[in-house]
Amino acid sequence: MSTVEQAIKYFNDNQKQMTETYLDLVRIPSVSTDPGHHDDMLTAAQFLSRYLEKLGFERVEIFPTDMHPILFAEKKSTNPDAKTLLVYGHYDVQPVDPLDEWKSDPFQPEVRDDYVYARGASDMKGQVMASILALESVLQTGDLPINVKFLLEGEEEIGSPSLDGFIESNTDLLSCDMILNPDAGMVGKDQPTLVYGLRGMSYFEVRVDGPKADLHSGLWGGNVANPANVLSQIIAKLHNPDGTVAIPGFYDRIPALSEEDKLRISTNKLSEETIMEMTGSPAVFGETGYTPVERQGVRPTLDVNGMYAGFIGEGAKTIIPAYAKAKISCRLVPNQDPIEIFNLAKDFILSIAPDTVRTKIFLHSAGPAYLADDAPGAQNLVEAMSAVWQTPVTYKREGGSIPVATVMQRELGVKSLLTGFGLPDDGIHAPNERMHMPTWLKGIETLIRFYLSFGG
Amino acid sequence: MSTVEQAIKYFNDNQKQMTETYLDLVRIPSVSTDPGHHDDMLTAAQFLSRYLEKLGFERVEIFPTDMHPILFAEKKSTNPDAKTLLVYGHYDVQPVDPLDEWKSDPFQPEVRDDYVYARGASDMKGQVMASILALESVLQTGDLPINVKFLLEGEEEIGSPSLDGFIESNTDLLSCDMILNPDAGMVGKDQPTLVYGLRGMSYFEVRVDGPKADLHSGLWGGNVANPANVLSQIIAKLHNPDGTVAIPGFYDRIPALSEEDKLRISTNKLSEETIMEMTGSPAVFGETGYTPVERQGVRPTLDVNGMYAGFIGEGAKTIIPAYAKAKISCRLVPNQDPIEIFNLAKDFILSIAPDTVRTKIFLHSAGPAYLADDAPGAQNLVEAMSAVWQTPVTYKREGGSIPVATVMQRELGVKSLLTGFGLPDDGIHAPNERMHMPTWLKGIETLIRFYLSFGG
Repeated sequence: MSTVEQAIKYFNDNQKQMTETYLDLVRIPSVSTDPGHHDDMLTAAQFLSRYLEKLGFERVEIFPTDMHPILFAEKKSTNPDAKTLLVYGHYDVQPVDPLDEWKSDPFQPEVRDDYVYARGASDMKGQVMASILALESVLQTGDLPINVKFLLEGEEEIGSPSLDGFIESNTDLLSCDMILNPDAGMVGKDQPTLVYGLRGMSYFEVRVDGPKADLHSGLWGGNVANPANVLSQIIAKLHNPDGTVAIPGFYDRIPALSEEDKLRISTNKLSEETIMEMTGSPAVFGETGYTPVERQGVRPTLDVNGMYAGFIGEGAKTIIPAYAKAKISCRLVPNQDPIEIFNLAKDFILSIAPDTVRTKIFLHSAGPAYLADDAPGAQNLVEAMSAVWQTPVTYKREGGSIPVATVMQRELGVKSLLTGFGLPDDGIHAPNERMHMPTWLKGIETLIRFYLSFGG
Repeated sequence: MSTVEQAIKYFNDNQKQMTETYLDLVRIPSVSTDPGHHDDMLTAAQFLSRYLEKLGFERVEIFPTDMHPILFAEKKSTNPDAKTLLVYGHYDVQPVDPLDEWKSDPFQPEVRDDYVYARGASDMKGQVMASILALESVLQTGDLPINVKFLLEGEEEIGSPSLDGFIESNTDLLSCDMILNPDAGMVGKDQPTLVYGLRGMSYFEVRVDGPKADLHSGLWGGNVANPANVLSQIIAKLHNPDGTVAIPGFYDRIPALSEEDKLRISTNKLSEETIMEMTGSPAVFGETGYTPVERQGVRPTLDVNGMYAGFIGEGAKTIIPAYAKAKISCRLVPNQDPIEIFNLAKDFILSIAPDTVRTKIFLHSAGPAYLADDAPGAQNLVEAMSAVWQTPVTYKREGGSIPVATVMQRELGVKSLLTGFGLPDDGIHAPNERMHMPTWLKGIETLIRFYLSFGG
């Protein structure tokens, strides 16, 4: 029996008990945003640290932060030349409200059909435990061919306020050759997925000031520019009728898609029906000349995220608002510089804003797009997934961003393997979150193969 | 000495004591919106009813409403053929916040220079008492040549919820030949003013729905129409670049201004400097080809009164809003039908709204414009004002609306004389509200002349 087969057999033989460990972790209500669960956060971190110690990790340390602790653990290979893999994960979960929409207690995992229902079952205690249990299976049946480090935070669901600083201050501790981040998920049950691109962002705010205070629209209407009307006119000019962004220079640095990229991207299916069903939008709308998957992953966007002016309560109030504002973000693709895009937007908006109002624009945040088809270990991971699912891997360029990947690339110089075994209909962040157990088991087998792929 | 001179002399001889009566009324903190002042409302109504009884009014009655009572009072002329004048007023006042910006107690009237400072000093206890004290001066010195009715409400500052129903149920009680409403004010200290036109209104709300819930702008941005962007595009299309409203048919029923109207309107001066100074807007903006006064009084408008979509708190949230909405009102001029205008707006908006979203429009309120240069008694009032100020009267078409005038015209068949002796810088609704006493005294003399103009 090969070492891979032995490790898989070990997992299969011990599946019941190892699954129970996963469920024990899920039972800890580690809701990071809720001060009432403050102690549960430490309990979850300690549960994981004890388990990793039991597996023979040489160094297991809980680092306090201003809020919830960061767990670091390290297990060395017996091979002094072994490469080092850093596994990122988070042990905190989303709040459970609305509680009355749950069919079972969110922290008493319940198995129905092929699913385990519980908060965090998928996002991402299922993924963290898959990473650990695969490693356990390897450790129990032979030599570990790589050094493994775990970095598990407790603040992901509240925006990871401590993580960047921790990474910046601990680059030696976290130094590695490869990074596995299993928080990214699959595009479908039969589609093992490698996320190799993320969009960047330029997020800014436009504020249009007119009168010094809200005005009586009867007394003054007709004689002053209305900031809400003016802001609408500005926003309307940010797009062309075909759905493209009208800011001059916006697309200038984007190279044409390579045939390889087109091919890879086309492995990820996204139908118009799926978009309409998942979003509830009455129609699909996007840049002409691109497929939905391309629009999602490789084309930039401009969206109003929020907009406000004047009176928005019930009923009617006859005022000309003193000001109007809009939060606007652009999702960016590789080669677009987020600061340059902000400046292009700013210049354009100021050039079209009339002098009947005072228009200001300021930047909220900026981050570049991320392209990681060359992340170390990508080929090993792709082969492991293909072997388990017996199907080609789906290459996905994600529409959103994963800030930790950007920070790790900058601080540790290593691009992340963005993958995972969560499914789009797991209901993460929603009531009745669930983990599809057949997929979870395949995920563990994938990670066993991945860990062992660096051997001899 | 003529009867007019006698009445004026009486007022002058008793000015100190009569002014004290006015200040006593101002001292009652009749803030209609504040439940803590509920008893003060009745106190104010009783103060007025007792004073009118003392003047010999035959019928004085306090009608309870769901909130604050309505005072009705009637004094008959000895002439059985006398015409009947209905005087409208309100005895409630605005709240006083922010209290710390007052230089003296808002309910302890203080005289500084030529002004009395107190909440309600101008709006409109000053006007109500001017009407009463002028009448007292007439009654004390001779025969009253007209029947006088007073209708004084206590809910004007909260939108007069009881008044319409009261008028509709008491058309006999309120029947009259003329209506004096001294709540309209003057355009300047040396410009006695008759407001002879009011704009109407069509107030509606547009709601654009897209996805069933806020979407992650990274996952879905690029593939669905953003309701906030779409709403902005709709609003932008409601105006032409020259400031005119772009809704087809919007201007169709508006006749050209007559030379007489142009001349009258030109007596009311409104400079661009005044607009900028009063509003704080960096520029004046309006329909090309019209003066500021014309834009204010005789041209219709379209203004966004409020607008909302998505995330409007501090910081950034990367969502595509599920919906966006805007409150929009059109100020209308005579001959525009408010329901027709709403339907034109609705048809136009639905015709330009894309089918990538669901767009709905509903009406909040609708009221026609009001033109009352032929209001009964107008000539008498104009002559009285000219005699006192020794200057031609300013004819004003007001940009706002005065709902009670519209209701009274409908229910009683009489157009109102809209005038008053408040000044634009009285600070009504603001801290340090004040009444300019020389103007108040001229106002009383004007009303003495007006009441007596129907004699012999």
